[in-house]
Amino acid sequence: MDYQKILDEIYEDIQEELPNGKVANYIPALANVSPNQFSMSITLKDGTQYNVGNYEEQFSIQSISKVLAFSLAIDIYSTKLYKRVGVEPSGSAFNSLVQLEYENGVPRNPFINAGAIVIADALISHFSGEYAALEKIMQFTREISDDDKISFDSSVAKSEMIHASRNLSLAQLMKSFGNFDNDVHSVVENYFKQCAIKMDTRTLSRAMLYLAFKGKDPISKKQFLTAPQAKRVNALMLTCGHYDASGEFAFNVGLPAKSGVGGGIVAIIPNKMTIAVFSPRLNKYGNSHSGTLALQMFTTKTNMSIF
Amino acid sequence: MDYQKILDEIYEDIQEELPNGKVANYIPALANVSPNQFSMSITLKDGTQYNVGNYEEQFSIQSISKVLAFSLAIDIYSTKLYKRVGVEPSGSAFNSLVQLEYENGVPRNPFINAGAIVIADALISHFSGEYAALEKIMQFTREISDDDKISFDSSVAKSEMIHASRNLSLAQLMKSFGNFDNDVHSVVENYFKQCAIKMDTRTLSRAMLYLAFKGKDPISKKQFLTAPQAKRVNALMLTCGHYDASGEFAFNVGLPAKSGVGGGIVAIIPNKMTIAVFSPRLNKYGNSHSGTLALQMFTTKTNMSIF
Amino acid sequence: MDYQKILDEIYEDIQEELPNGKVANYIPALANVSPNQFSMSITLKDGTQYNVGNYEEQFSIQSISKVLAFSLAIDIYSTKLYKRVGVEPSGSAFNSLVQLEYENGVPRNPFINAGAIVIADALISHFSGEYAALEKIMQFTREISDDDKISFDSSVAKSEMIHASRNLSLAQLMKSFGNFDNDVHSVVENYFKQCAIKMDTRTLSRAMLYLAFKGKDPISKKQFLTAPQAKRVNALMLTCGHYDASGEFAFNVGLPAKSGVGGGIVAIIPNKMTIAVFSPRLNKYGNSHSGTLALQMFTTKTNMSIF
Amino acid sequence: MDYQKILDEIYEDIQEELPNGKVANYIPALANVSPNQFSMSITLKDGTQYNVGNYEEQFSIQSISKVLAFSLAIDIYSTKLYKRVGVEPSGSAFNSLVQLEYENGVPRNPFINAGAIVIADALISHFSGEYAALEKIMQFTREISDDDKISFDSSVAKSEMIHASRNLSLAQLMKSFGNFDNDVHSVVENYFKQCAIKMDTRTLSRAMLYLAFKGKDPISKKQFLTAPQAKRVNALMLTCGHYDASGEFAFNVGLPAKSGVGGGIVAIIPNKMTIAVFSPRLNKYGNSHSGTLALQMFTTKTNMSIF
Repeated sequence: MDYQKILDEIYEDIQEELPNGKVANYIPALANVSPNQFSMSITLKDGTQYNVGNYEEQFSIQSISKVLAFSLAIDIYSTKLYKRVGVEPSGSAFNSLVQLEYENGVPRNPFINAGAIVIADALISHFSGEYAALEKIMQFTREISDDDKISFDSSVAKSEMIHASRNLSLAQLMKSFGNFDNDVHSVVENYFKQCAIKMDTRTLSRAMLYLAFKGKDPISKKQFLTAPQAKRVNALMLTCGHYDASGEFAFNVGLPAKSGVGGGIVAIIPNKMTIAVFSPRLNKYGNSHSGTLALQMFTTKTNMSIF
Repeated sequence: MDYQKILDEIYEDIQEELPNGKVANYIPALANVSPNQFSMSITLKDGTQYNVGNYEEQFSIQSISKVLAFSLAIDIYSTKLYKRVGVEPSGSAFNSLVQLEYENGVPRNPFINAGAIVIADALISHFSGEYAALEKIMQFTREISDDDKISFDSSVAKSEMIHASRNLSLAQLMKSFGNFDNDVHSVVENYFKQCAIKMDTRTLSRAMLYLAFKGKDPISKKQFLTAPQAKRVNALMLTCGHYDASGEFAFNVGLPAKSGVGGGIVAIIPNKMTIAVFSPRLNKYGNSHSGTLALQMFTTKTNMSIF
Repeated sequence: MDYQKILDEIYEDIQEELPNGKVANYIPALANVSPNQFSMSITLKDGTQYNVGNYEEQFSIQSISKVLAFSLAIDIYSTKLYKRVGVEPSGSAFNSLVQLEYENGVPRNPFINAGAIVIADALISHFSGEYAALEKIMQFTREISDDDKISFDSSVAKSEMIHASRNLSLAQLMKSFGNFDNDVHSVVENYFKQCAIKMDTRTLSRAMLYLAFKGKDPISKKQFLTAPQAKRVNALMLTCGHYDASGEFAFNVGLPAKSGVGGGIVAIIPNKMTIAVFSPRLNKYGNSHSGTLALQMFTTKTNMSIF
Repeated sequence: MDYQKILDEIYEDIQEELPNGKVANYIPALANVSPNQFSMSITLKDGTQYNVGNYEEQFSIQSISKVLAFSLAIDIYSTKLYKRVGVEPSGSAFNSLVQLEYENGVPRNPFINAGAIVIADALISHFSGEYAALEKIMQFTREISDDDKISFDSSVAKSEMIHASRNLSLAQLMKSFGNFDNDVHSVVENYFKQCAIKMDTRTLSRAMLYLAFKGKDPISKKQFLTAPQAKRVNALMLTCGHYDASGEFAFNVGLPAKSGVGGGIVAIIPNKMTIAVFSPRLNKYGNSHSGTLALQMFTTKTNMSIF
């Protein structure tokens, strides 16, 4: 299949969609991103890449980082993790406290904010400190992407911390139910740093290759997760990867994928490839408007989906 | 792969699990089923079948029938259907009214009770009457299973109607929001008849083959759905097929599947096969306890999943 | 105090408010009421009455009838009633199902619709049939108002029955939790008949005198309730009498009172008098806009309140 | 009426109830209170007092302090306050976040925790700092009780701060909706100090006299609130003074009253007297078990209630 041609066609078709949606504006660091950018990258098993658009532009991966942190945590804690966070779709907005109160401080899944914060807390406990935990996440990220220059944007993280009240509220609520070990502010701050990791679509699609190949990076041959663990991460991306539009995404695109409020989405085609898209304008669910459409175009054109 | 051997192993391993869980007891017709039965059937593309256990025993397919009715409805109404019913996981119990009230009478998806009832209403409207609608569902079921003797158990349907208050409440709530066209009692009665369709695992796995092969039955060569429609039905089974244990099922089994309170589950392995299991004792989420475990054993042993 | 003068002043002041608010329009029988009417009546202990405005105009008392039915039921069932209905403010809309589901089919109080329907069910059980129960309510109403011509408007009741789906949904939900004894349709139909009782403000203020004088009508000397029962009915009117604007009404008016969607409100000044107002345009909470303001004017002018 | 005799009778009757209920145990400072204490004090218009039991024992007034803070705030902000906090019963537990999220960070009323915290925030804004605000509350408390030795127990306040996560969560949630001006920790700390004010029942009943006499202390002749403001504080105590048992308290006791988790309750009989009770064991709603019963006995024996 001529993937470059497919990407080029998508690039052309997506142009008229680029003005639709709104860039995340709750912090200046995200609001100031040039809004009409678009890039898409594919990485195959042997490392071959196809790219289109602004694929050298780095963006804040935001919630996509939840996949990285969860991969680390599932490897460390195994099934013990599920006492602290579930694996069910929430049916609610990403930052809702309602379900968290009804369900005694145990978040529905690791991809809503409460779940990601509890994962951050668990990593800090395991690595005995927020600096060590952050260092491990960065190291893991650099290893899977085979790129030791990956860093996070501390100005984004700081800016998030100024508008952290909703996430602090989630963390305090979990603490009130006994589902929290460390200092609330330190954990949330670490969570924001992890969210502020910067990548371009080339690196992002490269990084997630281990999830397309049963936990083992097919290029470096490193086994980051067991096959059953990788299956579970993918399942979670399918059922919970797009907040309360996860069902619609599965329905229309049919691939495990995770989006971030910075405009990125990464999707997995098991045993074949990974795809990363970036376009900063978001739809009403907080997922990249053009990125979602581009992935739908891709699965329609290639007739690839997991179903 | 020696599927018969795998089924035989599962059959042996599952024996110790058979006493766990509770048979549905809200109506006598279901409560009286012999509780420790187990059967499992596989149907391949060419029609080859592998079976184990009580595979000649018919059971009430119950909520599995929602897949049949939704297939019919998506073919008739296409995207117009989504004004009346969504495609998102609900995050709530199968018969909850809470979300339905907050979301103005539009059910989250066609696999919770409210959604299935609205589909029943839509089919009655389209076929101009409850008898015609039921006849079409029966005809569709007979066609996909290539078995014109399939019928429903009217004693089960009547028994359900005596304990119908929760479903009638859901229907009346939707009516109060204007999302209902026909007589509430007639629609719910039709819905119960559809749920009372009887099959054994051989027939059930045979019937669902069209969903494993992009909407086209590979034996009869009949195209029941388009490829994108079949993909969507499968996606919906993955995200919403097991009520509020859908995430866990996707996580542990990793296949699109739909369960019924009669103890049946049908699962799809796209481009490969369909699997039906039956075991009447249910776990706390209302899904077959041993059936769920048997499917998990199958994907573990075969290393097959969509992820 | 010159009550006639006070009523006349209120009548003058309220004129500019009469065009505000909207007449209930969910059934034609209510929607067709002349919208800018206003009347107010006071009845003192000795039966002296003061009236202003359209005080000869009869209106549908609607939810005010819940006070009558609850008075009957508390007399019959005493504290056994509280197994089936609570006495707490609901904090939700009058027809919400959410709380009812969370609290297993036991309505928060007898003045939300679910609570009033369960009271109707309890009366039918006690009087062995819907006709007998309705007859008893009519008889009680005629006795307390000392007016044997009081009737209900059967065209209003019939019209309600055509738009009964929300109330039927509430009733079916309670039935599904086992908190319902009789046929759902018959109970809801009886409830609508009771709501369709017609009175003018003179009769309504006269009828409620027993609640101002510890359960005993000071004119007929009949004891309809014990003093503690009358206290409890008044307490319930204060905390729950105006749906989810009950707190605001208590806060601004400071009297036990019950409103109806027909535009009526009746208020109690213990040991002194009863006040009835009628004005069909409703505020956003479903309470008479001008009626509420007139009562607030009255308590401000007279410096009377229970606090 | 021989009030001393009535108190003595209540004291005797209540003895068998004293072992029922549980002392608040979420902080050691409250958990260590001697559990079977009971005291009750009445203060009349002219300052005459009747007392029984451990009336020299000081206790933590806790949520009763919300009445003091709200009195101050209503005097300062008048109706502008209602943009930040409502006056409706919540129908939920005192520390629930659910309603607060649905209603965009505006608490239902000033007597649930979220409402009291927003009042604390408003006072800090008005008095330009937490020390000044606390000083004003203490000064107000000393003035209304005519006792300049009243203080708060800083060990209780510190102990609360260690278990503050639920209240911090409420505050952060309000902040995320823009309904918060000052530093979250400082506000919550101030709130805990206010809650830690210590009084005995004699002082407490003396202090609240202004609410029984239209805002004016009948002894010192100081006008602390206008008559309409005092009416509103009393109305709020009636509808919201006992968390989600407020309806039941109004129903059974029939007096405006406010309880605290330290075991105190203060009740108002307008134009007559104030009553304070103290008994540390709480019922399941968090209100003093024996204190509630004692007030019910009082209104039954004296036939006094506002209804």
